[in-house]
Amino acid sequence: MTDQLVNGAPAGTEIFPIERLREFSVRAFVACGVPEEDAGLAADVLASADLRGIDTHGVARLAQYVEMFKQGRINPRPDIRVVRESPSTATVDGDNGLGLVVGPRANLMAMDKAETVGSGWVAVRNSNHFGAGEYYPLQGLPRELIVWAMTNSPPQVAPLWGAEKMLGTNPMAIAFPALEEPAVVIDLTTSAYAFGKVEDAARRGVPIPEGCAIDRDGRMTTDPNDMLNGGALLPLGSDRERGAHKGYCMAAMVDLLSGALSGASWGPFAPPFPAHLAPPARTVGLGVGHLFGAWQISAFIDPTEFRRQVDDWVRTMRGTRPAAGTTGPLIPGDPNRRSEETRRVHGVPVIRPVIEAMRRVAAETGVPFD
Amino acid sequence: MTDQLVNGAPAGTEIFPIERLREFSVRAFVACGVPEEDAGLAADVLASADLRGIDTHGVARLAQYVEMFKQGRINPRPDIRVVRESPSTATVDGDNGLGLVVGPRANLMAMDKAETVGSGWVAVRNSNHFGAGEYYPLQGLPRELIVWAMTNSPPQVAPLWGAEKMLGTNPMAIAFPALEEPAVVIDLTTSAYAFGKVEDAARRGVPIPEGCAIDRDGRMTTDPNDMLNGGALLPLGSDRERGAHKGYCMAAMVDLLSGALSGASWGPFAPPFPAHLAPPARTVGLGVGHLFGAWQISAFIDPTEFRRQVDDWVRTMRGTRPAAGTTGPLIPGDPNRRSEETRRVHGVPVIRPVIEAMRRVAAETGVPFD
Repeated sequence: MTDQLVNGAPAGTEIFPIERLREFSVRAFVACGVPEEDAGLAADVLASADLRGIDTHGVARLAQYVEMFKQGRINPRPDIRVVRESPSTATVDGDNGLGLVVGPRANLMAMDKAETVGSGWVAVRNSNHFGAGEYYPLQGLPRELIVWAMTNSPPQVAPLWGAEKMLGTNPMAIAFPALEEPAVVIDLTTSAYAFGKVEDAARRGVPIPEGCAIDRDGRMTTDPNDMLNGGALLPLGSDRERGAHKGYCMAAMVDLLSGALSGASWGPFAPPFPAHLAPPARTVGLGVGHLFGAWQISAFIDPTEFRRQVDDWVRTMRGTRPAAGTTGPLIPGDPNRRSEETRRVHGVPVIRPVIEAMRRVAAETGVPFD
Repeated sequence: MTDQLVNGAPAGTEIFPIERLREFSVRAFVACGVPEEDAGLAADVLASADLRGIDTHGVARLAQYVEMFKQGRINPRPDIRVVRESPSTATVDGDNGLGLVVGPRANLMAMDKAETVGSGWVAVRNSNHFGAGEYYPLQGLPRELIVWAMTNSPPQVAPLWGAEKMLGTNPMAIAFPALEEPAVVIDLTTSAYAFGKVEDAARRGVPIPEGCAIDRDGRMTTDPNDMLNGGALLPLGSDRERGAHKGYCMAAMVDLLSGALSGASWGPFAPPFPAHLAPPARTVGLGVGHLFGAWQISAFIDPTEFRRQVDDWVRTMRGTRPAAGTTGPLIPGDPNRRSEETRRVHGVPVIRPVIEAMRRVAAETGVPFD
């Protein structure tokens, strides 16, 4: 099985048990001055992504977080505090802490409120990159809560008919528990395409699909370098006829709910994540913004009845007649769940550049890796 | 100005003052057995759409509602009741009432709860078509509430890699008040294209754009008749590479939150709206489902500060460098607001088929039209 996991993967890929990746992250964060408990929380968020096949958001990011600490761009011991509160809402100031710590704590507050008054909404400002969005709704499933998480992010996307980056890919994630079927787990960005795929295409010298990006004049392009050299990603929908105004509206919604409502930065002024990028031209708020929401299912309907309906929904969608040349629709969350099932047992394949980055982290922090 | 409004419109287009359209709707609903107050509420929802340029959702739909009453498919005097409640949530059974009445009442409950405990969420089952989505968040603006409304709808859209209609176009709407700038008003469906545009293209014998629809085998098509004859609309994103899994996920989210959480029908079993369509094959819940949510801005941040941030956001987005060949990005809500400004003063242009439908309503209900 290990061979199977590595087959087809780039040369130099190695398999790691998830516990080892998690433990390395914990110790690296602690070496950066993060308290033990917070380091454990942050490592959980990364490990969840590694298990569930979101390879871009797991241990692959560790070196970037460490670099942000090294440059003093993230506060390792934040005083996370509630600055405004009502029975079903709160606004949290993350004190420029790690998003992987501020996010889970704020999400917990939203869940606790939902169990008290039916729903809980926590807006967060002064935070940083919060990891893979689906981590947050996954926490709600065992508590029979529907959790909805969103965050704004550094500008990569042009509004429809714009020629420059003004909005983040602004993801949102939500999950619904079932009874016998697996949960429906949704995690999406509001752009047509991922920035990582553009970078990858440029590295490999291949075009990107039509409808994913524009050049610096706002013209659609299939050359990834056009996007990288002053262009932008397109909103979900690609152009006016196919609904790109809707992708733009979704990105705007996430930006205003995560950024403006919390008092964080927004739009083109959202702080960049990799440490080598310059801070934004103008400061309109404090750091990155998130919004976490939780609904208590039993506040609306008998939870077992709800779970049965989700079972039925899942089976109904799976039963859709397949489009020619396909095996039929997936259920949101299918690929990540399958990844988790395999990787929990057989380990996580890590590509050589990530292993090398972990070695650099080891050298810088003194945490043993090999 | 009247000439200008009619210029370019199909022959037979006439201009009506909004008061006259609204009054006709009120009297038609009353003639169907709807109590006066409910009829006024329903007519307000239609009039809002007519003013704001959402011509498909205004008085153009009146004949369909009347037909639904005539066939006994909608209850004119529903006993709208709360079946479950918590401080920040409720589930409402609409007793198969007009969505234009059940929706506004449930939305009002969500807003009242938000003013009491910071946020309010009302799931609705056993309702019907609730009109244009943006009506609901518009009600929140004068109260400094952010309102989020969504509804499931009859199946028109295939899940990615499916070959049949399994989900509605499942719209959502949300609005954000500004201070000096107009509010940001978002109202979108989760499909790449509108069914009405497919019907229109078929009537005119012209193709639809690539990426909007599939034929009965699930193959992409530009022939509108392929979609009409057993095909389906595609989710926002059009195909896998350009993110159609995200549009599918959004439609799923709206379906599960509106349908399953409230105990309404969902997916392919959501009840059809025009009265000539047969009821769904299987009953999985009660009627159409909606979800209304409201956040009290002051529960999160000083409302004036928030409005200032929205002003800044609007000006920033408006200041985006325009893409070549365009005049630059719009702000969500711009076209509808401009329509309202014009139509409040100069009246609403109504095309001949709608005038004819109103004449039929007049003949059937005894309400004078000419």
